[in-house]
Amino acid sequence: MDKQNNKRIRTRDEFSSFLESLFSVVSAENIIYDPERLTAYECDGLTAFRATPLAVLLPRSVEEILSILAVCKRYKVPIVPRGAGTGLSGGATPIEGAVVLSLARFNRVLEIDPKNRTARVEPGVTNIRVSQEAAPYGLYFSPDPSSQIACTIGGNIAENAGGIHCLKYGLTVNNVLGLKLITLEGDILTLGGKGAESPGYDLLPLIVGSEGLLGIIVEATLRLLPKPECAQLVVGCFDDLAKASQAVSLILSFGIIPSGLEMMDKLVLDAVQADMPRALLNSAQAILFCEVDGMQEEVEEQSIRVKEIMLKAGAKEIVVSKDDSERMLLWKCRKSAFPAMGRISPDYYCMDGTIPRKKLAYLLKKIDELSAHYNLKVGNVFHAGDGNLHPLILYDQSVPGEFEKVEKMGEKILELCVQVGGVITGEHGVGLEKLNSMCIQFSSEEIEQFRRVKKAFDPYSLLNPAKTIPTLHRCAEFGKMHLHKDNDLWGGLERF
Amino acid sequence: MDKQNNKRIRTRDEFSSFLESLFSVVSAENIIYDPERLTAYECDGLTAFRATPLAVLLPRSVEEILSILAVCKRYKVPIVPRGAGTGLSGGATPIEGAVVLSLARFNRVLEIDPKNRTARVEPGVTNIRVSQEAAPYGLYFSPDPSSQIACTIGGNIAENAGGIHCLKYGLTVNNVLGLKLITLEGDILTLGGKGAESPGYDLLPLIVGSEGLLGIIVEATLRLLPKPECAQLVVGCFDDLAKASQAVSLILSFGIIPSGLEMMDKLVLDAVQADMPRALLNSAQAILFCEVDGMQEEVEEQSIRVKEIMLKAGAKEIVVSKDDSERMLLWKCRKSAFPAMGRISPDYYCMDGTIPRKKLAYLLKKIDELSAHYNLKVGNVFHAGDGNLHPLILYDQSVPGEFEKVEKMGEKILELCVQVGGVITGEHGVGLEKLNSMCIQFSSEEIEQFRRVKKAFDPYSLLNPAKTIPTLHRCAEFGKMHLHKDNDLWGGLERF
Repeated sequence: MDKQNNKRIRTRDEFSSFLESLFSVVSAENIIYDPERLTAYECDGLTAFRATPLAVLLPRSVEEILSILAVCKRYKVPIVPRGAGTGLSGGATPIEGAVVLSLARFNRVLEIDPKNRTARVEPGVTNIRVSQEAAPYGLYFSPDPSSQIACTIGGNIAENAGGIHCLKYGLTVNNVLGLKLITLEGDILTLGGKGAESPGYDLLPLIVGSEGLLGIIVEATLRLLPKPECAQLVVGCFDDLAKASQAVSLILSFGIIPSGLEMMDKLVLDAVQADMPRALLNSAQAILFCEVDGMQEEVEEQSIRVKEIMLKAGAKEIVVSKDDSERMLLWKCRKSAFPAMGRISPDYYCMDGTIPRKKLAYLLKKIDELSAHYNLKVGNVFHAGDGNLHPLILYDQSVPGEFEKVEKMGEKILELCVQVGGVITGEHGVGLEKLNSMCIQFSSEEIEQFRRVKKAFDPYSLLNPAKTIPTLHRCAEFGKMHLHKDNDLWGGLERF
Repeated sequence: MDKQNNKRIRTRDEFSSFLESLFSVVSAENIIYDPERLTAYECDGLTAFRATPLAVLLPRSVEEILSILAVCKRYKVPIVPRGAGTGLSGGATPIEGAVVLSLARFNRVLEIDPKNRTARVEPGVTNIRVSQEAAPYGLYFSPDPSSQIACTIGGNIAENAGGIHCLKYGLTVNNVLGLKLITLEGDILTLGGKGAESPGYDLLPLIVGSEGLLGIIVEATLRLLPKPECAQLVVGCFDDLAKASQAVSLILSFGIIPSGLEMMDKLVLDAVQADMPRALLNSAQAILFCEVDGMQEEVEEQSIRVKEIMLKAGAKEIVVSKDDSERMLLWKCRKSAFPAMGRISPDYYCMDGTIPRKKLAYLLKKIDELSAHYNLKVGNVFHAGDGNLHPLILYDQSVPGEFEKVEKMGEKILELCVQVGGVITGEHGVGLEKLNSMCIQFSSEEIEQFRRVKKAFDPYSLLNPAKTIPTLHRCAEFGKMHLHKDNDLWGGLERF
């Protein structure tokens, strides 16, 4: 991670005095500083990076947060906000000399408003709970990251989380209507609301996806959607990834907007095969999941059309869900893909990048080449409709130097994404993981502008610093340059 | 407008030297400084505010813009960006001692990409032209402000323009995928692109609607939509505004998302009646337009349902368009509402505010009361589906003091919008017009945060200063305070 020089706590005495200040404003049961208990907070879902925080704070009120921010500002102690810690890019991983500010106790559902189809919740509420509370009104919250049972709304907003349904219903940013945010200066800002238009600068979408660098979210107003009358899942198997990719393009070009359009390759299929219907395993190189939802007749008509398109694109076998329980069973194969990798490899590293859909076949070929070059197996699961790839690089943590190789290969994959006009993240964020890749994605002017925006919210750079936005110094050291902008000041390109 | 003290050009000599610098970097035919020709640039669609700029610059290239910005920065001369000047809140109105930077000559359509359904255009391209160029591919650009024949994409983006179809297809912000922006520092930033996710801070939606305060847009990538297979317009007349409002709620609660849902009251109806089908004029107090679009069967089914709902809500008469030419004819009544006001009043002032739909009936009653209080007639046309009101205050410019009364009444209406949980703009922006109302909408902390964001892009406050974001000093002088936030530091409320 990038080094920061604003650390203030250097001695045991300074630490004691800092702790004392915290105890004077926060209830004792809301402060963890016992080293044993701190280990639980050493990392998030990106387990390869770890650091022990000075302390973990679990405030229960806005007032406690304001006091914590004031104390940290006085001692120049960085603050790392944290939801459930399920993120995959290190956004909630502590940095050296920082405290972790957990929003776990901000876990109340404040209001379900069925008339306006909104939910007002605190950031520590889990994603799944919003839909559970909305269910009696026939409503649900559409972003559904695969960690939805555990992950929290605050984390979803920080990372602009996606999920299977975001092709049709949008990412988190499209489903958040309002936020209450505390800045490091202790200002409480109310952003957005229940309407579409926002006078002044629209800061709401700036905060969504800002990975905890601009403020502490203490409340969110979410858009709820009416549950579709029905949904049907069409699953096809193909003997060639390119044919499955072709089916994706065809489905979308027919004006069908599936509620889910997902693909898995052979290696992933091998891992999950115990869960798959036998017919689909028949010499399959790729599996395509296409769900359509809406009103009964519309869904029936569309799923017939999807089946026809898949056959035309060369599908070998097709299974169409007969009812909701069969649909959920089929989805289970897709949703179990990540955990199932454990059956075939001791460890795996989940990448996340997005490319224009038409480059899908090209990029998969390139990933194959990288896989051979680095001698690392790669499984591919992806949100095909959005062009959001999740290459899973298989490796063994116990082999010295292997993770470093994995990291290098991961960077190469992201470089390829940028090269074909894509971006270095789809839904997992940048965090600690992709700082180098940011140097490829953005020009020095763009990174400088990011840093100026950061300063407009957090002049002392105490909120989750050293993440997401690299320093220009780091980019210079990294020695690669951004790829696809006209205003490139960096000179030539280094390509794979 | 708010006073700024950074003006540098005070003497004729300084002006000559400034002009000389401009001539050294911009072709002579791209500079207007002859007073007669400058009058055309004294205001935008908000004709009540006027000022003469020092000069008008019409650059043809990014290099010329960069040079202009550098010269203006050296002389500390404010810059007012301008599209077609059709805006209604004074966003493109010059301020004292400023130059106008017209993007009129950035008028090329750079690319129509039917496969990705995008258009890449320069900011001076008119709104309608994008749809015209996309038409051969069966595509169109959905935001359709009523000035769409004249207004430009740059202006649409600056004001986050809407139109009749934004209930279903979103405001401009939902239809812009990428931007190329020049900051006052001369940095060229590429924001967004063809994909959904944006690593780092998502600056794109921050720029959309920022009213020319954060940078100069030189290129935009727009989302194109496939033209719906068919559309049908259901128009109903009601003897009571409340019944028509009820129909709006009912239609939406049935899960129908109309492609247009518009209302007009009696006074507006009187103005446009020459264009209306006779049946609809029958003792009508309100007219409701509801358009549905999509696939043939779906549209037929939905328009029958809309008709049933309108009847249930108490419609006296209903006309359903039989074909596209009848549909366009019916829409003409709605679209001619603004110009038609000229038939019944020498002048009118068009307001723009947004409220939660359920407050529609309440707010219309309140506007009636204000109309009586100020003795000013008000016609109401609105995007009912979005809760976006356009009260048209009728007056006579030649009566001394009447416009001041109109302005005061306008402010009161916006105050009411905020009071019921709404906002002070729907699609026209803040500009010069609504600076005072911003003090009601936002807390001092929020306004301060806006100013910090402005500074992160434009540290010398030279880009369209004194607009959109009021100074705290102005808010204090205005003496009213924001209405609906918890963190109100301003003390009590002054209400109408």
